Amino acid sequence: MGIGRVGRRTVEFWFELASPYSYLSALRIDALSAASGVAVTWRPFVLGAIFKNQGLTTSPFNVDAAKGRHMWRDVERRAATYRLPFRPPTPFPQNSLLAHRVALVGLDADWGKAFVLEAYRAGFANDQDVGSPEVLGTCVAWAGGEPGRALAEAGLTETKERLHDATAEACSKGVFGAPSFVVGDELFWGDDRLEDAIQWAVGGHALQQA
Amino acid sequence: MGIGRVGRRTVEFWFELASPYSYLSALRIDALSAASGVAVTWRPFVLGAIFKNQGLTTSPFNVDAAKGRHMWRDVERRAATYRLPFRPPTPFPQNSLLAHRVALVGLDADWGKAFVLEAYRAGFANDQDVGSPEVLGTCVAWAGGEPGRALAEAGLTETKERLHDATAEACSKGVFGAPSFVVGDELFWGDDRLEDAIQWAVGGHALQQA
Repeated sequence: MGIGRVGRRTVEFWFELASPYSYLSALRIDALSAASGVAVTWRPFVLGAIFKNQGLTTSPFNVDAAKGRHMWRDVERRAATYRLPFRPPTPFPQNSLLAHRVALVGLDADWGKAFVLEAYRAGFANDQDVGSPEVLGTCVAWAGGEPGRALAEAGLTETKERLHDATAEACSKGVFGAPSFVVGDELFWGDDRLEDAIQWAVGGHALQQA
Repeated sequence: MGIGRVGRRTVEFWFELASPYSYLSALRIDALSAASGVAVTWRPFVLGAIFKNQGLTTSPFNVDAAKGRHMWRDVERRAATYRLPFRPPTPFPQNSLLAHRVALVGLDADWGKAFVLEAYRAGFANDQDVGSPEVLGTCVAWAGGEPGRALAEAGLTETKERLHDATAEACSKGVFGAPSFVVGDELFWGDDRLEDAIQWAVGGHALQQA
């Protein structure tokens, strides 16, 4: 967990590896963090568990066809604006549970963020199955980790419980979708609020002085 | 219906008078239209009818408490950024059916846009009931219309059918929430996509050349 410049608060970046808008934020947040001096902590959580609490059994983008159509086109437009590759995953949403556990293991070591970026690339640029241990092992290797050991640690009860606890923590902070950004007591939801969250961390109530 | 500068397309602004994010867009869109030379057509529709098709009986912000809490705080933050007054209406959502009918009548005359802005001010700055004929009559008067005549025309079967047809047209264009912006075949959802929609109208595929 890094400390930003004096007086600047940390942004908690709550992401879900199956979430298209989280993909956009994950690929953008490092540059914004560097430019602002705001530290970012990467927090994987299980969005499906939160959706289940809302009475959903799949993504809201699958429940409402019109909303889903808009989302795919919107992400495509925004990816083009950001000059990011984008290819919708099939099927959607992918099963991201194991990937999140691997991410937790990697974030304890020094390859977690690189792994998350590789996993997003696999899922949203290369149409690979991020539920597959083989795909995840390759992502771990690219990120500089040791695949066999990483997948073994991901399967430990302790790791599963930590992911469960992280999801409960997200819930307790008001998170209901992904990506979400938490700065002190302020919650920002959506890739389109990433800049706002960074600004909030830079200057406290900076938005109100804009 | 205005025509923008040569080569610039029109933005259809689909708004719902009970929608907080539509309030933000309604108060911002004129300045963006003027600065860009893009013409805007104001299109009221009944969001509740679309929610009903989605199986909802109230606003999604009431269905999911965490989502609702975030929305109120998010609108408050954004209103502060835009230097707009904001006071959450009670109860929420307000009954906007009559207000939409009056808006249609006014948009046929020359006081429609001013009426819509007055109705938004009543609902989201002054905590007045925009379901009330008295409040709406005052809004019509401020906008330069004749309240008695406006309310009578709003009650005509023809006006009711036009609002119904407008809502069906919104649906057919993929609208599932408010505000929505339609530029040719492109749909943009949310106050945070207003600038994108204007840009799209200015330069066609401008986003992809950004």
